[in-house]
Amino acid sequence: MAERNLYLTNLPVEEALGLFTKALEPYRKTDTETVEVIHSLGRVTAEAVYALKNSPLYDSAAMDGVAVVSARTKGAGESAPLTLRQGEDFIPVDTGDPVRPPYDAVIMAEDIQDAGEGAILIRAAAAPWQDIRPVGEDIVQGEMILPGGHKIRPMDVGVLLSGGITAIEARRRPEVAIIPTGTEMIEPGDEIREDSIIESNSRMLEGLVAQGGGVPVRFAPVPDEYDLIKGRLMEAAQRYDMVLICAGTSAGREDYTVHALRELGEVAVHGVAVKPGKPVILAVVSGKPVVGVPGYPVSAFLAYDNFAAPVLEAMTGLRKTSAPVVKAALTRRLVSSLKHREYVRVKVGRIGERLVASPLARGAGAAMSLVRADGFCIIGQDVEGLEAGSEVDVALYRGLDELEGALVSIGSHDLILDVVADLTPRRFPGINVSSTHVGSMGGLLALKSGEAHIAPTHLLDGETGEYNIPAIKELFAGRQMALIKGVGRIQGIMVAKGNPLGVSGIGDLPRCRYVNRQRGAGTRLLLDYRLKAEGIESSAIAGYEREAATHMAVAAAVASGSADAGLGVLSAAKAMELDFVPVGNEEYDFALPAEYLELEQVKAFIQILKSGEFRDKLEELGGYSAERCGEVILVGG
Amino acid sequence: MAERNLYLTNLPVEEALGLFTKALEPYRKTDTETVEVIHSLGRVTAEAVYALKNSPLYDSAAMDGVAVVSARTKGAGESAPLTLRQGEDFIPVDTGDPVRPPYDAVIMAEDIQDAGEGAILIRAAAAPWQDIRPVGEDIVQGEMILPGGHKIRPMDVGVLLSGGITAIEARRRPEVAIIPTGTEMIEPGDEIREDSIIESNSRMLEGLVAQGGGVPVRFAPVPDEYDLIKGRLMEAAQRYDMVLICAGTSAGREDYTVHALRELGEVAVHGVAVKPGKPVILAVVSGKPVVGVPGYPVSAFLAYDNFAAPVLEAMTGLRKTSAPVVKAALTRRLVSSLKHREYVRVKVGRIGERLVASPLARGAGAAMSLVRADGFCIIGQDVEGLEAGSEVDVALYRGLDELEGALVSIGSHDLILDVVADLTPRRFPGINVSSTHVGSMGGLLALKSGEAHIAPTHLLDGETGEYNIPAIKELFAGRQMALIKGVGRIQGIMVAKGNPLGVSGIGDLPRCRYVNRQRGAGTRLLLDYRLKAEGIESSAIAGYEREAATHMAVAAAVASGSADAGLGVLSAAKAMELDFVPVGNEEYDFALPAEYLELEQVKAFIQILKSGEFRDKLEELGGYSAERCGEVILVGG
Repeated sequence: MAERNLYLTNLPVEEALGLFTKALEPYRKTDTETVEVIHSLGRVTAEAVYALKNSPLYDSAAMDGVAVVSARTKGAGESAPLTLRQGEDFIPVDTGDPVRPPYDAVIMAEDIQDAGEGAILIRAAAAPWQDIRPVGEDIVQGEMILPGGHKIRPMDVGVLLSGGITAIEARRRPEVAIIPTGTEMIEPGDEIREDSIIESNSRMLEGLVAQGGGVPVRFAPVPDEYDLIKGRLMEAAQRYDMVLICAGTSAGREDYTVHALRELGEVAVHGVAVKPGKPVILAVVSGKPVVGVPGYPVSAFLAYDNFAAPVLEAMTGLRKTSAPVVKAALTRRLVSSLKHREYVRVKVGRIGERLVASPLARGAGAAMSLVRADGFCIIGQDVEGLEAGSEVDVALYRGLDELEGALVSIGSHDLILDVVADLTPRRFPGINVSSTHVGSMGGLLALKSGEAHIAPTHLLDGETGEYNIPAIKELFAGRQMALIKGVGRIQGIMVAKGNPLGVSGIGDLPRCRYVNRQRGAGTRLLLDYRLKAEGIESSAIAGYEREAATHMAVAAAVASGSADAGLGVLSAAKAMELDFVPVGNEEYDFALPAEYLELEQVKAFIQILKSGEFRDKLEELGGYSAERCGEVILVGG
Repeated sequence: MAERNLYLTNLPVEEALGLFTKALEPYRKTDTETVEVIHSLGRVTAEAVYALKNSPLYDSAAMDGVAVVSARTKGAGESAPLTLRQGEDFIPVDTGDPVRPPYDAVIMAEDIQDAGEGAILIRAAAAPWQDIRPVGEDIVQGEMILPGGHKIRPMDVGVLLSGGITAIEARRRPEVAIIPTGTEMIEPGDEIREDSIIESNSRMLEGLVAQGGGVPVRFAPVPDEYDLIKGRLMEAAQRYDMVLICAGTSAGREDYTVHALRELGEVAVHGVAVKPGKPVILAVVSGKPVVGVPGYPVSAFLAYDNFAAPVLEAMTGLRKTSAPVVKAALTRRLVSSLKHREYVRVKVGRIGERLVASPLARGAGAAMSLVRADGFCIIGQDVEGLEAGSEVDVALYRGLDELEGALVSIGSHDLILDVVADLTPRRFPGINVSSTHVGSMGGLLALKSGEAHIAPTHLLDGETGEYNIPAIKELFAGRQMALIKGVGRIQGIMVAKGNPLGVSGIGDLPRCRYVNRQRGAGTRLLLDYRLKAEGIESSAIAGYEREAATHMAVAAAVASGSADAGLGVLSAAKAMELDFVPVGNEEYDFALPAEYLELEQVKAFIQILKSGEFRDKLEELGGYSAERCGEVILVGG
């Protein structure tokens, strides 16, 4: 086997950043460039800017009216109107017109009366300088308009121009090279081979660099060949202000990055105590910062945020507006390790008086968790874990106002939740559906602990054959609950196109490689119920212990050929172009405490369920019935 | 005289916006266009986006190591190592490599031992599917990646690409025509004629439109000619999605805009109950929204924010993140009118436990107030005024964290405050100097009411000839105060270049047109003190009642020729290239409660005062001495 270099350091973020900053210290400089003011929006001033002109440029009329010589208006009064003659005693002026000696006051149009033949009547004397904007009233020549290090906003552009400035010295925008690596990387739209990975991290990094005020320069993916990687790194470090190199940062057979960087320059850090994102490299080549960004997308995001962003900020002078940090109650226990600080993506919503944070998928590869999250819950390195219900700090990357309008749904997954999440904010701006998938039972438990507004559920009562209501009655005895009817849906066995094993029902599962749902999922309970009915032991099912978290994940396993069969809904089978052997109908509904029926989010949700648009979508997805969809049933209490 | 059209309506903002929206209703549509995902940052999805591919595309190794057939690893244990052979029992894999049948588990590199000749030893059995990322674990084909109406962020770009999406339907970015008008308008850098106005509002509007997600298309300034204005409006409304026409929106002689709009389309509103910014026009031409934006910069900003921004938001689908609203104590009484809602620009800072809001210049022309402000204090139409100290809502346009680091200075003005404000945040990131100029006495009073951290002051005690300390002792009897020594500065009479009237001292002022400072200003007190000493009555000074708010404003009045003389500091005279007749030295210091010496902002401030960089700047400005600059003296207590 090829040599592996297994040893990474495990430095805390601050210590690693400190070493990086120190290594960069000798090369620190601030480049500036001259920028036309009309193109300066968002740029950062390199130095203070002082006005070259007064604004207004001269004493000018503050109102539409006439400019007069104040001394000649003395004596005018309500009962003693005074006649003024144009050209002698007054001249007409519009707002902004210059007022020059001998004129030293303006009388506004509303206070004069036309007396014909170029004469007017006034009924009040004008005080000297009345309704005149003196020269420089707004901006005085020599006055500082903007300090150095200021990010230029639209109003700044206006004032700079008014102050006679046409160009400023601004910090040069740093150019950041982004080098994806990996022989298996393909570009978006390329034909997919059997070991392809669609290169996407560099595109996320392009966006982050652009948002941070840098100019991203993306390279084409470089195959895993030592000389190629080294050459590209050298070229990029010489030419650009900063380099981000993606993947190959760990210590595997083909992780050449660190070796190339050691030859080219100084590696300050290799390995940080962060999860996800341990295999980070922080290096200096040709005096330029180089960040080796791990290949997993969440790791890449965190490596950028923790290490590349601060260095870029120092170059641009743009301080990142710090994310609002809120206190929220954790909905699930989180176990972490003393080996690292962990960044857990969470959904956040307001339930009653408190904010709750539901952890999303924690894997480094869970890019969707970055998309779906409202923020990060950070578990310090000194913390082994956090209990459910404990108060945590969440660094938000969405505005708090957006979260206030969230309908927090925790429970069973169905594709229709995506549809509702799409339709709701479009019809009800400010309201959105935030859902986390933990199975039916997990949802009801979350509801009970006050961590969700609604719980999508499809729980079959083994004794009565009734859906959902018995489970709610049992779990919420004595409490007034409600059930919003959702959809009837067909559950069945998903098998490969053409049903090659000839699966016709539950009885055929013992001869399949099965993929199951997680514990607490209604679909798993349905399987157990049916197995029991048919007298089949779960141990007879190969893959009973193999778990997937959603219908779609089960469908994907079957579609990929790694499993022969899995239980799920028709819409998932259709989405993956699988064959489907119906097993039975079930009721997928939404449980909630009755008092939440008064919430705006819940009202909006019910309206969406009842809408024609939603029903059209169900038709499109297939396998659903919606006769009672949106109907509210009170349960217990 | 030409006809004037004096009558504007006075509609509340919401009512005006309602009429505008209603007039636009028949023409509402959402244009979309196809956008490549790699260029989609910041764009808004027109519809929900569903994944076309799974990610990962196949079952893949989650770690560097070997892929094994789990069944063949049974029995391996710490004391019973098992030998596996490459190609038979295992294949080496790196993170992300596909794992295909018969392989169904991965053992990570750290857990294997090289046994030579392509063999390895393992000391634990592998569970099926261990360390394998199942196909679709992150993104499942058919899953919704983004809902409609979503603004695309960097992580969204990455996930879209991983989900096999290369292009999306996005809302088309609206093109917004911006038409400046006015015969007197010149472009930045053009030669300044005697009635020139540098056209700048359209440039501010360009920035606002760009920040709002639109594409600004600026026209060259159109002279005040009816047919030209009408033609340009028609052209713009036909070709672009929205039109902003600047100035000429009032009811003056040359305010043609409303007449042209009435001929071309429908004027929904002319005149709103807002100050500044009453003369707004809201119209519809060729089905396109047209906003007539008043000519004063603050009015223009508010007209955009109140009327153009919401219409643009409806087109782009980008919801403006609402400005944080904070409660703050007003430092000065504000009188307003029942005729309108007023938007007062304020500086905001934290003094002890509370936030304080200091009103800035209120004029519609005070563009610098937009630049200097931290936010708006909005005085409702039903409120006649607000007392000093009353709690008001301030809509911030700066982050609260920036305000927390502000050293709030209220008092006398000197150019060195600009210099300190420039140097401080550069040397002490996160700390900034926020200063408001109300004169020395006003500053001490603000300090007394707990509205400022420091008060720059130069108050001469008429009896002792001592500066500042007597005034502080008197005003803060019994309280432990401190004085941070500032600069010695030369006050003198500023006169036109060449001193045409031959002014040699205070005694010559009765034969000059004078421009004074506002009541409470130290410089005015100095004048009074000197006049008294020379036995001159203030009524003997023409222009004694003409007030300017800063040294620079006085200098500008003299430079423009509208005054012959004014008292001020040498640096102001130098900045305006005026001659200067010295009258005396004075001490410009900073008063503060002694406990504030412990604040980080104050410590930073003192360090800046003591720095070489600051002293170099003083040298450059001229007229200052800095022997004791930064020295702290305890006063009273």
